[in-house]
Amino acid sequence: MTTKIHETEIAIDPEVPLVRITRDFDAPVANVFRAHTDPDLVRQWLGPRSVEMRIDHFDCRTGGSYRYLHIRGSDEFGFHGSFHEVRPGELIVQTFTYEGDPDGVALGRIMFTDLGDGRTRLTSTSLVDSFAARDAFVASGMETGVRESYDRLDDVLAG
Amino acid sequence: MTTKIHETEIAIDPEVPLVRITRDFDAPVANVFRAHTDPDLVRQWLGPRSVEMRIDHFDCRTGGSYRYLHIRGSDEFGFHGSFHEVRPGELIVQTFTYEGDPDGVALGRIMFTDLGDGRTRLTSTSLVDSFAARDAFVASGMETGVRESYDRLDDVLAG
Repeated sequence: MTTKIHETEIAIDPEVPLVRITRDFDAPVANVFRAHTDPDLVRQWLGPRSVEMRIDHFDCRTGGSYRYLHIRGSDEFGFHGSFHEVRPGELIVQTFTYEGDPDGVALGRIMFTDLGDGRTRLTSTSLVDSFAARDAFVASGMETGVRESYDRLDDVLAG
Repeated sequence: MTTKIHETEIAIDPEVPLVRITRDFDAPVANVFRAHTDPDLVRQWLGPRSVEMRIDHFDCRTGGSYRYLHIRGSDEFGFHGSFHEVRPGELIVQTFTYEGDPDGVALGRIMFTDLGDGRTRLTSTSLVDSFAARDAFVASGMETGVRESYDRLDDVLAG
């Protein structure tokens, strides 16, 4: 691995219950985008290193949906949602529910920006309907999972 | 028509960019719910009286999606989204984009509450990612459309 590890910035919005995550990758937009839409690639990086990902379905197109499990030992954590809009190389808008909190739902937006020289900036936002829910999400230790996911994504993109 | 016209309450949340709409109906939960999920019924009430609704697809189940047009003379207004979760008689969580503003998206939640005596309370929330977007939505004249829709839904439920 010669890829430099970029920092993952995680910021809470001061005005609305939203988290904004920013991360650069040393790979072209098309590759970073494909690593988000191809379940065989997604499975290799989405989640902390301590879990194995099992995909129930992952139909990443406008109007599609997904469900997957993160498995750690005998524990299974389910996640599901819909792909509201998928614009190749540009944007993914999706919903997200952690099944341990089945009434909770986040609206996510992942934007892919071409930085030139084969580099890409990923900007990912998650919107929920209360500051308490947003702050609980941030306090849940998601930062470790997000940073590890993107470090793993570096490996997938370099591989 | 002997159905009493109930008032539609439209309130903006003071803390988050959300609109909350509340409306009672003199019909059982199962009927009000079916009028939201059966496209042949939805077509009869969703939208102001001045438009005709043409459904492209309307697959109201968890993981499904929809697209429809409102048509007024030669003008067509498209709307599309995903059904994140559909719990019969209880809840519909969906996304919503007006195609005239293709980057805008709302996360909607429709809750069905049994008030007893064959009456139902509908509580519908729409969450967006900025107060400016929320206030523009409210200022757009949506109130007339929402009130007319629910008055039309009274007629469908009584019919």
